[in-house]
Amino acid sequence: MRGHAARSAAVFVTPRHAPPRAGSVRLRVRYSECDPMNVAHHAAYAPWLEIGRTELLRVAGVSYAQLEQAGVFLVIVSLEVRYRRPVLYDDVVEVRTRVEHASKVKIRHAYDIVVVERAGRPIEESAAGALTTLACVDREGRVTLLPTWLAGE
Amino acid sequence: MRGHAARSAAVFVTPRHAPPRAGSVRLRVRYSECDPMNVAHHAAYAPWLEIGRTELLRVAGVSYAQLEQAGVFLVIVSLEVRYRRPVLYDDVVEVRTRVEHASKVKIRHAYDIVVVERAGRPIEESAAGALTTLACVDREGRVTLLPTWLAGE
Amino acid sequence: MRGHAARSAAVFVTPRHAPPRAGSVRLRVRYSECDPMNVAHHAAYAPWLEIGRTELLRVAGVSYAQLEQAGVFLVIVSLEVRYRRPVLYDDVVEVRTRVEHASKVKIRHAYDIVVVERAGRPIEESAAGALTTLACVDREGRVTLLPTWLAGE
Amino acid sequence: MRGHAARSAAVFVTPRHAPPRAGSVRLRVRYSECDPMNVAHHAAYAPWLEIGRTELLRVAGVSYAQLEQAGVFLVIVSLEVRYRRPVLYDDVVEVRTRVEHASKVKIRHAYDIVVVERAGRPIEESAAGALTTLACVDREGRVTLLPTWLAGE
Repeated sequence: MRGHAARSAAVFVTPRHAPPRAGSVRLRVRYSECDPMNVAHHAAYAPWLEIGRTELLRVAGVSYAQLEQAGVFLVIVSLEVRYRRPVLYDDVVEVRTRVEHASKVKIRHAYDIVVVERAGRPIEESAAGALTTLACVDREGRVTLLPTWLAGE
Repeated sequence: MRGHAARSAAVFVTPRHAPPRAGSVRLRVRYSECDPMNVAHHAAYAPWLEIGRTELLRVAGVSYAQLEQAGVFLVIVSLEVRYRRPVLYDDVVEVRTRVEHASKVKIRHAYDIVVVERAGRPIEESAAGALTTLACVDREGRVTLLPTWLAGE
Repeated sequence: MRGHAARSAAVFVTPRHAPPRAGSVRLRVRYSECDPMNVAHHAAYAPWLEIGRTELLRVAGVSYAQLEQAGVFLVIVSLEVRYRRPVLYDDVVEVRTRVEHASKVKIRHAYDIVVVERAGRPIEESAAGALTTLACVDREGRVTLLPTWLAGE
Repeated sequence: MRGHAARSAAVFVTPRHAPPRAGSVRLRVRYSECDPMNVAHHAAYAPWLEIGRTELLRVAGVSYAQLEQAGVFLVIVSLEVRYRRPVLYDDVVEVRTRVEHASKVKIRHAYDIVVVERAGRPIEESAAGALTTLACVDREGRVTLLPTWLAGE
């Protein structure tokens, strides 16, 4: 049930090709993500951003699940979100993610959250912008270098 | 921001055709849905079921958002889940939903949650079964009849 | 960061005294737990029940965190909730938990969720009832016997 | 069930005394808030901050629920969190909240999230810092002035 066996295998994970610097993913807003103001609760955005940056990895041929199995854990050190317009229940949002900066130990992603469908009709409305910074830790939680294919100069 | 204006319009909502009795939707398990046991936390399943039954409505041409705008609120009166096997981070689950029974005032849905992708490879593993019963209330929270196209005999 | 080191220590965990068969804990309903119907979303109840049964352990002098560190994982195998009356934002709910049955491998808890404060005033309104069944697994996810002090005949 | 009746009553809400500029509230970290890294997931912090600023209002004798019933909705326009050290399952965190700045239309809160109990023992470990900015909207979602007792110069 726990997959700890998998973790103990020191797998060497390298992507099939360089991960893209930008990408996007679409998500439909869940009823359980919305609050009494009839809009997506602001805490719901953080998992959307996480999906945005995870899908960037997947396009390169590596899942974040594989990274963790190989002992590479990406932890968030900062999160900033600007909420510009409300996102409604049943909207489809597109999370547009790009690598804004990468060093040997940190990656900074920038995000636009854009409503692309509302009430069944296509629209294009920027709802929020965000920035996150991730660092890399090992199984014991010690800060470590990013895998070279993720790191910058 | 709140959409209350929309609510005051008494829209008459009827589907384009009879809603299907069964359908399915696929979801990728989010990191934020998983717990220290490295599996999807059991509370995460309830929103998946909600998405399952909502997508049944959408296939009929009605979104649940439209129902609420028309003053029709579906509230859950019972939930039962049998957890058989763990669901892992990054798995793709298929929520297979069917209308098990409908009366004039309640609908009962049955669900299978099946893992259909794990570690990037297709599998077919039934992870959980569930039942929910919904009743219908109006804007003031009074129990009311289901819309006839949703109701049974 | 991960506490895996702690897990590798095979700690023998026994409570200071037999765990009580019943107990209660109070929680204030969070805004983020409420949905566009202006009530606590039904998925929010599952974590409340989890807190209810965890606090029973704590009264006996054992935290669930200690159990996991000792390699004892309690996993949910079934959940049933009857939702009778809505719970509102800012309500204080009391989760009343009791051990309904325990065997060598499973524990069944029964719960009442009672609203005890609304709009700053004391009330006593039973809002929901629930049942959960837990089994015990080891670090590798294999079903195992419950610790004897938790198990029944 | 919905409380819309309550919303239509235009209640005039004023606190019994000026709201304090700073305060704190303690919360025990829930299992459902923790992720496969065995720490509180970063999205869980946003509801903690919300509780922190809500409890500041309560000390002044006004609940946020009363404000919404009176047609005053506080919406978040920016969120910044610095995650310094992990917060573990079952930790008790203290959310220390203060009003950093208030204008006629916005309030800025600053927060420290401090672990004050771990594994049953008192500690004092600053885990995160945060800033939020709130604006005020009416029932139709139009930006409006803050209630004067909340607003700054």
